[in-house]
This record gives sequence, C-alpha cells and structure tokens, in this order.
Amino acid sequence: MPPIAIGIHGGCGTLARELQSEADWAETRAHLEKSLRAAWAVLASGGPALDAVEAAVVVMEDSPHFNAGYGAALTEAEDHELDASIMDGATLAAGAVCAVRRIRNPVSAARAVMERSDCLLIAGDAADRFAERSGLAVVDNAYFTTERRRQALASLKARKQRGTIALASEAEKHGTVGAVALDRNGNLAAATSTGGFNNKPQGRVGDTPVIGAGTYARNGLCAVSCTGQGEIFIRRVAAYDVAARMHYAGQTLDQATAALVFDVLASHKIGAGMVAVDAAGHVRAPFNTLGMARGWIENDGVVHVATHQDAIKAAQLERA
Amino acid sequence: MPPIAIGIHGGCGTLARELQSEADWAETRAHLEKSLRAAWAVLASGGPALDAVEAAVVVMEDSPHFNAGYGAALTEAEDHELDASIMDGATLAAGAVCAVRRIRNPVSAARAVMERSDCLLIAGDAADRFAERSGLAVVDNAYFTTERRRQALASLKARKQRGTIALASEAEKHGTVGAVALDRNGNLAAATSTGGFNNKPQGRVGDTPVIGAGTYARNGLCAVSCTGQGEIFIRRVAAYDVAARMHYAGQTLDQATAALVFDVLASHKIGAGMVAVDAAGHVRAPFNTLGMARGWIENDGVVHVATHQDAIKAAQLERA
Repeated sequence: MPPIAIGIHGGCGTLARELQSEADWAETRAHLEKSLRAAWAVLASGGPALDAVEAAVVVMEDSPHFNAGYGAALTEAEDHELDASIMDGATLAAGAVCAVRRIRNPVSAARAVMERSDCLLIAGDAADRFAERSGLAVVDNAYFTTERRRQALASLKARKQRGTIALASEAEKHGTVGAVALDRNGNLAAATSTGGFNNKPQGRVGDTPVIGAGTYARNGLCAVSCTGQGEIFIRRVAAYDVAARMHYAGQTLDQATAALVFDVLASHKIGAGMVAVDAAGHVRAPFNTLGMARGWIENDGVVHVATHQDAIKAAQLERA
Repeated sequence: MPPIAIGIHGGCGTLARELQSEADWAETRAHLEKSLRAAWAVLASGGPALDAVEAAVVVMEDSPHFNAGYGAALTEAEDHELDASIMDGATLAAGAVCAVRRIRNPVSAARAVMERSDCLLIAGDAADRFAERSGLAVVDNAYFTTERRRQALASLKARKQRGTIALASEAEKHGTVGAVALDRNGNLAAATSTGGFNNKPQGRVGDTPVIGAGTYARNGLCAVSCTGQGEIFIRRVAAYDVAARMHYAGQTLDQATAALVFDVLASHKIGAGMVAVDAAGHVRAPFNTLGMARGWIENDGVVHVATHQDAIKAAQLERA
C-alpha cells in the first residue's frame, strides 16, 4: 500500500521546561498525541489528507496549550484576532481567513472559504459572517481567553514599559499550530492556525493565512506549515520556497527545510520552525529555538511526540 | 552609469477599443505616461526604486482610468475596499494593507506599514487608523466612486441575475495597477494596488497585498507586479515563482514571466498579466487578455505606452 504520514507542530515558542509544571507538559504531549491520532484515523482508513490536517489542527485549536483557537494570544487591545489557512496539494486549491474574532475553529472557516466561496482569503468581520452563514460554530471573543495568555500579555506590557521587550522569549511572543499530511492516494495537504503574537497591534496579519508563506502543499513535492515571526516568513515566501528548492533545484525535503530554518530564516535572527512532509511520506520538523511542540507518524505507524531540543537531537540520531 | 528602468501596468482587464471613446483612450495613455515620468524623474536623478514605484502607483491610484484608489471597483455592498503592497528588493522588507476604506493612496499606506510599524500586513479599520496616525491623507469612502464603476457594478449584478456572469469581460471584473523599478544602485522594487473586482464579496482579499503572489522584488533577480484573478496568483505564488525560476532554474526574466502568464496561470483559464524588470533593466509585460494598460522606460529613456494586443506584438517584434 502507498505510504501515509502526518506531521504537526504546536509552535516554535515552546516554554523552557522549568517554566511549566510536569503535569502541564504531560497534558501538552497528550494533546499533541490526540491531534496526531485524529489525523491518523482519517489517513489509516484511506481518508483524504485535507480531512487529516483539518482534524489535527482542530484538536490543537481546542487545546489551551497552543496559540490558536482556545488559548490564543491576546492583542494589545486584550482581545483575540485569529488567522488560519488550508491548502490542497492535489488541486492547489486553498482557503484562508484573517483577523477573525468569532469562529471557534478558524481552520474549518479556512476550509469553508476554499470549498464554499469564490474567494481564497476573507478578512475580518466579513469572514466571521461567512463562517456563521456556512454553519460553523461561533463563540464570543472571550471564549478564546485563558489565564496563561492574560499573564503573558501583562508580562509583555510590563517589559515594553521597562524597555526590556527584546528580552521577551519566543514563548511569550509567538505561537502557531499546523499540520501536514500525505494520504493513500498520494495527496498532500497543509493547514496552519494562530492567534498571532501576544500584544500584537490590532489588524496585524502574519504568515499563517498567507499561502506560500505560512502554508503550502503541492502533490509530488511537499506540504509545509510554518511557525515563527510571520513577517520574515512572508518576506522569504518560506513555505513555497521549500517546494521551489525541491522542484527547481532538486533538493530533498531535509535539505530544503534545513536551508530555510537554519540558514534563510535564521539569518534574520528570528526563531523559526516548520513541519513538512514529502511525497514519499518523510516528515521533517526543524526549528532553531529552545523547543517546538511537535509530533509525527510516518508509514510505520510509530507515534513521535516531542517539545524540546534534546528530543529532536535524539530523533535526528535515530534517523542518521 | 549602471542602468535604470521603470515598468508599469494598469491591469489586464483593459476594455475592447470600441467600448471607450478615443478621448478616454488618449487620457488613459496620458495617465500611463504621467505615471512613468513620475517614476523616471526619481530614477534619472539617482533616487531609489522604492520611491519610483510608489510615485508611479500614486499617479494611477489618482486616475479614474484604473481600478485602484480613485476609480476603484465597487464591492457587492456598493462601497470600496482597497488592497496594496510594496517590496524593497534590497532588504526584502515589505509592507501591505488589505480591505482598507479611507486611505486616499493605499500604496503609501503599505509603505508606511513597511517603514513605520513592526508589521508587514495590516487589515481593515486598523490599517485605516494606522495610516491616519502616520499622517497620510484620508478620504470618505465615496471619494473612490466613479460613474464608470457604478455602471460596471449594475451590469455585473444584472448578469448575475440573468445567469450570464460567465460572459462578463475581464474589464468588467478585474483590474489592478502596479510598478517595478531598477535604480542606479542596482536596487529593485515593486508595488501593486487594487480595488479588487467589481461586485466582490465584502472582506475578499486577492493577491495584491500578498507578498510572493501579487508583488515580489529581490535584488539581483527581479521585481514583479501582477494583475488578474488574484485567487489563482496566490495558489501559484506567481510573483515569487518568477524569481524562483530565475534563481533556482536559471531562467531569464523573459522565460520566467512567459511561463507564468502563458502556461502556469493560463492553465487555470484566467486572464493574467504582469510587469517585471530584471537586474539588468530589461522590462517585460506579458498578458494573455485582450489588452493590458502598460508602459515602460528602459535605460535608453524611450517611453513606451500601450493598451492592447497589437501594440505588444509590435513591441515584441521590435525587440526580436
């Protein structure tokens, strides 16, 4: 049977180990595994990669441990504006929403835009109204708020006042969730969802809803979902650049994703990470930060979940 | 002295000749020439490509003959939502706004986002407020409305009711303006601005504010500004794909732009066009529609302005 694979990330802004209780880390890993298994159930039964990535992202959007959906970052105005996108590698169809405020699962709104509208990207209130008309669950904006994000916002506002904002960790600032999948029919798909960064200006849109920057999928090449300072990912057209390196320059997924994360994006002095899968079902999840919540199941069916650097080093050794 | 060059487009949705008076065509050409000369004045005096593309686009935004700024398309709600972006090929810095309603010159707002904010893309009301705080001219939304667009909207709404929407011309639907430039210091820049398409759903965002799709610039390679059905340009990461073909596959500007317009984008059965300049100052402006308002001045200083296919054929012969 042709290979299947799922890869996910929960953002490259993972906290240092000591900043969260072991119970919280255990729950983070449990939610990553739940996300993987939701996608795997689709793929293993012959279902489409698009359904798998949506299912994986919905689990992370519903978890308070990731900056997307419930538990999303707060804007400077202390509310939430969410971005998401999804792309079908078989048709290159894609959908996205930005600066939405009332859709419980923005990734499903992105999919609705792709499948039920003539648009690819819908912004703001109009996207909320579109999702509501499409029958998706809507919530009050306050639904997305967690105590953890309130504390992070207070900490960032204090740093800004003290002039120590440059010392803020990636974890205080950014965060995103994403998934990539290969299904039995050889179709690739990618999806990404985020609350942006804590204390972000209202109206700011990052790379998550930008096809080519935060999300890209094309059959025969790769599916990619990114995490990190979105402005740089847009400037470097990061997700599509992985595909372009493979297509035009003959690079492998490993070479192309490593070039982006450790060379191109790192040259801008930013934290960066991505998860990607190629047409043969190889998953890669490189990052240049302290940690990146992530997980993958390749065709062997073995579940991998990790949050910090040491685990990825072990994984790299294992692969070598 | 190193070469300089400017290229502009006023959208690939140019009307058939017989649908507009000769006086209107003359004014269209005059405004294209004014746009080119505004940019050329910057470049010839050693000024930056960024200033040149902004100046060129501002002239077209202020003209009723193009779908950007004054004269922009009307949404289905009979008002205006504008998108714009700008990119500096020297630094890969970029700025963009989407779904803005009150900024007289959206391209200048995009530049302000690039230079005076930590964001790359700002959406909706927040972008209007940012532009106002940055000291840019704001106007009532009704400022952008022209009689021509009111008629086009009425015609499209009638077609939709009659079920003949598929027969609507590119000119009834789309339109965009854009500019690309090479300056004496070898710096490339690109900018694009649009009102989207007539009768567009509120909140719809096309490729114009999406770096990599509608706009891209990178020193040593090319600057690109696109026009056509934006959703397809986003799916094909069209502007960046020109650069990727040149960088990774060694294609010339001519080969890369032709591949996009006549092969990749045309395969989606859409009208498509772009203007692009390479690091040596060659300008190309391919399109696959009846016409594309366009103009260019290469290093020889000769001003070229054209609106329809016959002119481009002549120009191609001249270059051959």
